Amino acid sequence: MNVVTTVDPRDGRIRSTNLAETDESRLAAIATAASRAAQWLAGLGRLGRARMLDAIAESLEFRRVDLVAAAAAETGLSHARLDQELTRAAVQFRMFGDVLRDGGYLEAAIDHAADTPLGRGPDLRRMLVPLGPVAVFGASNFPFAFSVAGGDTASALAAGSPVIVKAHPSHPLTSHTSGEAIASAIRAAGGPDGVIALVYGEAAGLWLVRHPAVRAAALTGSVGAARAIQAAIDERPDPIPLYAELSSVNPIVIMPAAAADRADQIADGLFASFTGSGGQLCTKPGLAFVPSDPGGDRLVDGLRARVGSAGGSVLLNERIRDAFEIRAAAFERAGARVSARPRVQPCAGFTVPPTLLEVGLPELTGEITDECFGPLMVVVRYREAAELDAALATVPPSLTGSIHSGSTDDVVVVRRLVDALSARSGRIVFDGYPTGVRVSWAQHHGGPWPSTNSLHTSVGATSIRRFLRPLAWQDAPEWILPEELRDEFTAIPRRVDGRLEPGVEISRP
Amino acid sequence: MNVVTTVDPRDGRIRSTNLAETDESRLAAIATAASRAAQWLAGLGRLGRARMLDAIAESLEFRRVDLVAAAAAETGLSHARLDQELTRAAVQFRMFGDVLRDGGYLEAAIDHAADTPLGRGPDLRRMLVPLGPVAVFGASNFPFAFSVAGGDTASALAAGSPVIVKAHPSHPLTSHTSGEAIASAIRAAGGPDGVIALVYGEAAGLWLVRHPAVRAAALTGSVGAARAIQAAIDERPDPIPLYAELSSVNPIVIMPAAAADRADQIADGLFASFTGSGGQLCTKPGLAFVPSDPGGDRLVDGLRARVGSAGGSVLLNERIRDAFEIRAAAFERAGARVSARPRVQPCAGFTVPPTLLEVGLPELTGEITDECFGPLMVVVRYREAAELDAALATVPPSLTGSIHSGSTDDVVVVRRLVDALSARSGRIVFDGYPTGVRVSWAQHHGGPWPSTNSLHTSVGATSIRRFLRPLAWQDAPEWILPEELRDEFTAIPRRVDGRLEPGVEISRP
Repeated sequence: MNVVTTVDPRDGRIRSTNLAETDESRLAAIATAASRAAQWLAGLGRLGRARMLDAIAESLEFRRVDLVAAAAAETGLSHARLDQELTRAAVQFRMFGDVLRDGGYLEAAIDHAADTPLGRGPDLRRMLVPLGPVAVFGASNFPFAFSVAGGDTASALAAGSPVIVKAHPSHPLTSHTSGEAIASAIRAAGGPDGVIALVYGEAAGLWLVRHPAVRAAALTGSVGAARAIQAAIDERPDPIPLYAELSSVNPIVIMPAAAADRADQIADGLFASFTGSGGQLCTKPGLAFVPSDPGGDRLVDGLRARVGSAGGSVLLNERIRDAFEIRAAAFERAGARVSARPRVQPCAGFTVPPTLLEVGLPELTGEITDECFGPLMVVVRYREAAELDAALATVPPSLTGSIHSGSTDDVVVVRRLVDALSARSGRIVFDGYPTGVRVSWAQHHGGPWPSTNSLHTSVGATSIRRFLRPLAWQDAPEWILPEELRDEFTAIPRRVDGRLEPGVEISRP
Repeated sequence: MNVVTTVDPRDGRIRSTNLAETDESRLAAIATAASRAAQWLAGLGRLGRARMLDAIAESLEFRRVDLVAAAAAETGLSHARLDQELTRAAVQFRMFGDVLRDGGYLEAAIDHAADTPLGRGPDLRRMLVPLGPVAVFGASNFPFAFSVAGGDTASALAAGSPVIVKAHPSHPLTSHTSGEAIASAIRAAGGPDGVIALVYGEAAGLWLVRHPAVRAAALTGSVGAARAIQAAIDERPDPIPLYAELSSVNPIVIMPAAAADRADQIADGLFASFTGSGGQLCTKPGLAFVPSDPGGDRLVDGLRARVGSAGGSVLLNERIRDAFEIRAAAFERAGARVSARPRVQPCAGFTVPPTLLEVGLPELTGEITDECFGPLMVVVRYREAAELDAALATVPPSLTGSIHSGSTDDVVVVRRLVDALSARSGRIVFDGYPTGVRVSWAQHHGGPWPSTNSLHTSVGATSIRRFLRPLAWQDAPEWILPEELRDEFTAIPRRVDGRLEPGVEISRP
């Protein structure tokens, strides 16, 4: 059995842990337990699962001090950021409790028997049911909110699907403690082993998605990881969906009037957005289009000053640090000039300097529009905002696209640029920054490939849809129907004979 | 240019047509036109598209005589069945008009800016937007309702996604005339070329799904066809979803009390269900579990009598006829006994005898649980209904599972069998037959692989979801928002700050 090690990115020190990489027979036992647990979880019902999710949120917050300390030592992220992220993880579990109590996520529909142009139509009732056990791949950059205790886990458990998490190798101890916190809340709710489980090691991740009991996989990670997982899925006789959020450049357009009006304020916001958390956010703005005019010059000067006096960023692991350096060098070789890059003290950890690069719009090549994970942003200077929609069409699809405009900017051009951004992203941000993803009903964290698999979000209430499938009952006797599909049940939103009935609101306990 | 030919399955005669197989440069022009048409279609708006869909329904009905005659000569299906199917196609277009007018399909949500446990949350608004041009592969067995004028086309156009149909080679003239009927209604609505287009030939289908402009593909067909299309999609740098409905055995369980009470009535229903349309329906019951008792004997005797005196069925094409004969022979080699099979006159067309096979539950092997497309059903005789859930777990997942029970059947066993069927199908039918799929809001025509890609339906109102993606607007100025996301707009269902508002009903014109 291979022992799992953990590395402190602040000093590069490697320590061994009490955890072992999961072997194939252990994995099979875990998958079988998940299959059995699926029945318990479905039987718990919406309201039972809502209470379980609330208890998980409490259990995570109860272990806040230990979890934040473990994550700080494994990720190099600040305590403040990790403290906030743990709150976010708890908020996500509670939000899905609300989603369950609301019940609209079931998409319940009833068509009573009726005469139709095609003859007598039978009684039909449809709602969404759990898909079955889900494989979740933890992300490096969010040890809580996109990992064991993250939104994929919360939404899958809410759906009624057991979760097997492949722990990210950058934070095994944080993963283990998170898993314990979740499991203890599930045990307290009477749940069996198998509602949540963790596996360790790259091989275990691939066995996992090939196992017949696993019905879907969710990943926040790299394109390379996604391809390896997809190749393993392709070996199955029955395909399963892979919900993957992979890579995103997040272009941001500063229109001339915005630069003229708010150069300093935007420099502040952009600097914070591209360097926060070491630039290791999927929504980090990687490309900023800034006008070649006095307002744009002031904005870039402001950015330069802030970057020049910044300290180094500790990156999450050695691989990410190496990739950052390789990618930054490639951008420079492709013609991007260094606009600002402070000297940072050499150290044993994985520290890099925040880096501002600059390029003229005509020099913007495909190489420079790739994602560079870490504290790097490329400023693209342009002469005519009206030329930008053509440029935006060459930027890879992203999770987000942002635009800052002022009152004297041409609204026709703004509209065109918004259309160009909309065609290639999942969220359009106006006069703001893409980082800081609100966890709510209307959120969409997705976008055309490779930012995600396009059709679903991985953040927000509707992410639960990924782990559900429709089931219809035709002419079913009342006693066999789920209560949500019985005639007299009115507590949740339902579409009855084509008409939406909003349901009686249930207030939170 | 290869000329497209058409075959009359009633006599096997081959005729050439004025149609040509689509070459790669023509295909590229079609895909480019579809991209351009996407903007027009989106700009038409919900209500404009609803009117367009109504006009398409009218246009199809206006050409009813020609379309039914063309389809009869190309499919061998009866005029009565084809007449009904054309009505269904028109009903589908009109249903999606209603879906658009209702607007709930947009999943519109507004979260106003608010203080949250994670700080100030921005204003977020989300709804679904068109995915872009869709490739539709017409099916052999429904020349209208799952082909050029079928539900995939109707739901994609409703979503705002242009459609390129790869015409099924079994009915090119029907496809062409259907395409003309649809295109003329779109032209009358002011639409450009490219909102709908047809391509012919196997190579064109594969070029189509590899073309960068195409954003999704929908197929009702064989597992082999799906694998070829998926392999072509896998060559793309950006994966696109393939919505595939492929193969389904549709087990039906007759409980002892049902057989005792209604042997004759069930024999009638089963016979009609497995032989109607030559058994060439994806929901044809292929496996019927019948008790080994006097009620079951009466039921099987009734089936035998009906099958024995039936005439031959004309199948859709030579390939399907050959596959039917090969599969029926394989079932017999695997131990299924011929229970009834009339002699049919040898003829030049693709005629086969309806075939009833019989096997004991212990002899039911994997070979016999494959789908046999055509008028064949295997009766599986069982002693104990309580043993059936284990058997049902070995039947491949299906679009449907059916159960007939009587008042003295053990409800615990019925519940267990319904659970077993639910785990492996998309629709559970009680005391009825799976054929005859109601087109409505609560329909689900899907199920675990290989019956479909599981998460979505290809029939009914919610099938529109396949061709939409979410888009979120953060802190957007009112003038840039789609009207459905503006504060004062209340005509459609929306989730505002987490609370569902049902919207003002708009009556049909």
